[in-house]
Amino acid sequence: MTSTLQPVQAHGCQGLVCRLPDESQRATMLDAAGALPQLAISHRVASDCELIANGAYSPLTGFMDQVGAQSVIDSMRLPTAAGEVVWALPVLLPVPDTFSVVEAGQSVALVDPDQRVIAVGELGQLFELDLHHYAQSVYQTTDGAHPGVAALMAAGNRFAAFELTALLNRPRRDLSTDRYFLDPAQTRAEIARRGWQTVVAFQTRNPIHRAHEYLIKCAMEPLDGVLIHPLVGETKPDDIPADVRMRCYEALVQGYFNPERVMLSAFPAAMHYAGPREAVHHMIARKNYGCTHMIIGRDHAGVGDYYGTYDAQVLVDTVADALGIVPLKFEHAVYSKHCAGMVSMKTAPVRKEDTVFLSGSAVRAMLANGQRPPAEFTRPEVADILIEWATISS
Amino acid sequence: MTSTLQPVQAHGCQGLVCRLPDESQRATMLDAAGALPQLAISHRVASDCELIANGAYSPLTGFMDQVGAQSVIDSMRLPTAAGEVVWALPVLLPVPDTFSVVEAGQSVALVDPDQRVIAVGELGQLFELDLHHYAQSVYQTTDGAHPGVAALMAAGNRFAAFELTALLNRPRRDLSTDRYFLDPAQTRAEIARRGWQTVVAFQTRNPIHRAHEYLIKCAMEPLDGVLIHPLVGETKPDDIPADVRMRCYEALVQGYFNPERVMLSAFPAAMHYAGPREAVHHMIARKNYGCTHMIIGRDHAGVGDYYGTYDAQVLVDTVADALGIVPLKFEHAVYSKHCAGMVSMKTAPVRKEDTVFLSGSAVRAMLANGQRPPAEFTRPEVADILIEWATISS
Repeated sequence: MTSTLQPVQAHGCQGLVCRLPDESQRATMLDAAGALPQLAISHRVASDCELIANGAYSPLTGFMDQVGAQSVIDSMRLPTAAGEVVWALPVLLPVPDTFSVVEAGQSVALVDPDQRVIAVGELGQLFELDLHHYAQSVYQTTDGAHPGVAALMAAGNRFAAFELTALLNRPRRDLSTDRYFLDPAQTRAEIARRGWQTVVAFQTRNPIHRAHEYLIKCAMEPLDGVLIHPLVGETKPDDIPADVRMRCYEALVQGYFNPERVMLSAFPAAMHYAGPREAVHHMIARKNYGCTHMIIGRDHAGVGDYYGTYDAQVLVDTVADALGIVPLKFEHAVYSKHCAGMVSMKTAPVRKEDTVFLSGSAVRAMLANGQRPPAEFTRPEVADILIEWATISS
Repeated sequence: MTSTLQPVQAHGCQGLVCRLPDESQRATMLDAAGALPQLAISHRVASDCELIANGAYSPLTGFMDQVGAQSVIDSMRLPTAAGEVVWALPVLLPVPDTFSVVEAGQSVALVDPDQRVIAVGELGQLFELDLHHYAQSVYQTTDGAHPGVAALMAAGNRFAAFELTALLNRPRRDLSTDRYFLDPAQTRAEIARRGWQTVVAFQTRNPIHRAHEYLIKCAMEPLDGVLIHPLVGETKPDDIPADVRMRCYEALVQGYFNPERVMLSAFPAAMHYAGPREAVHHMIARKNYGCTHMIIGRDHAGVGDYYGTYDAQVLVDTVADALGIVPLKFEHAVYSKHCAGMVSMKTAPVRKEDTVFLSGSAVRAMLANGQRPPAEFTRPEVADILIEWATISS
């Protein structure tokens, strides 16, 4: 990437959205919120409130109306006149049946399952969507076993636009990882403080083993730094908990990276498992967090075998110019005994008998049995954290 | 790099220059050349003839006139109205005193030290340059011990512009490496045949040890392929001969790379050791050969300690946008026992006692003694080729 003296522009070129009140504004608004109609939202929707309010979803300033939703579903663009702003996943506010009267312009408080007021703002028109068409276009499947489709269907088919005035409480988060929650304004400030002109984002919902450590280092070598940006919102029940993963990332960075070139921060989004569309969505968010590049591996944001292993890479390529963040597309990596190091089949000769590779289930079995996987597969410090979690929780 | 469906444009956007006649044209012209005045040229100048004729120096169609030379020396640009075409090193035809009558428009044959007619074309005006100013601007030194400055001074201060009509003989080359001499049209065709949309060039005048093997692989991982493009023209007397180096590169690619992602071709240019300016010059040439990216390490094209170790990287950054080929800037790499692999100090913790590093002189001493350096420093197959050469030649 050529050197850029200006920081990365927020997506949509309208500046970073900010709906985070200061402490006194917040106190006033929270007080007033008690008198507003309360609309119950899920933890997933609460995540979206935070990402709208902190600018991660710039240029969105709220939940989409029907025109916006349809535009995103059908053409992966926001409904501007020139159709130039890419947007991959609809960001919607489901309205429960219990919230019966919906008037456009009505001020409401969005309340999470723990009865906390997450945000206040103004509702727009109520609308419905063709959920099967939505699922097929965005998730490329209507299979109820797909976790993203399941979440979509479970939320119902009653939505309202919502202009978010202010985030009044952060969604629930595991307090042990609280210090890692940097908003886009904060990651941008830190990137500027470090003097980085190029920074690559690494998205993950898993611990980082040697394969991804290698890809991160490959990506970083010609750039100024990396933002390791694990997703810590709602995932699948069998995904490893966020706090365990953060300790793994910390141990890896401390033992095997140069901390001057690494930022570690949590991305408080939920997973949709929407594969290609979610790869684009992830790139938009990381651009808003200030990144110039992003690692896109194989089957990015995929689940099961719903998506071809290169589908996400192909899709991001079609919009990379419009997005303004460079996708760095990687192959799987593995340890090669012959090459005495991590390689990928793109760049080195890889013969099965020469490599050290384990399947996900084999690794989980070893960890549950208190056994470290080979050092060529995962760093011992990471293995030990996972073993402690696996043996305690089994 | 975002996907590009068109091949890389030739520098200066006027298409690839081609002054390579077909066999019958060549025969006719060679015959006619016998009647032309003969202007003696060095092997260095013969190299430049080839690079002008095969398009590596596009948009140049011959040797520069005084205005062109001055523009390049003073502002690193060709003298177009908009000053938009970057050019870093003057490409000049020294005219020996023995060639006494120089008429603008005169057709001449350029003849190398082996009495071979290299090229025919038309001379322009004779001119002189301020060689000290030239050396200071381009080489940042007037020290006669600098090999590039020495070559400049040795060629005298009498130049003529020259419009190159045709290359009639290739400059001398070691026949054992003849099959690697791909012209830009041929590298572009092979890149297109392989379907590569991104390709990174690697320039070297040395054998490739594990450090550079690692950087090449890092650079390749998110791209489609690499062009390993060793410079095989005139270098310093103590540089390893081109044929020995080509065998090293072959052994390395066969043993440790995926050949589907590697092209190996010789770059028939002479070295100037001009550091930063030569890094820019190298990038322009590799763009003409069809590359979208180029690896720029530390002290690129440097010699001794004339240049700061990052000077070339800083300079290429200032012109990268104008050049249209992306510099990938790398740190030194070294083997880390703790990380169990190649690392750089940018991306990993590097402590002296933890690394396997040898100085150039230590390596040469080991090779001359028939001793393989550690496998963490260089691949045994490469070491064995160098040992054979070192022990035979000592």
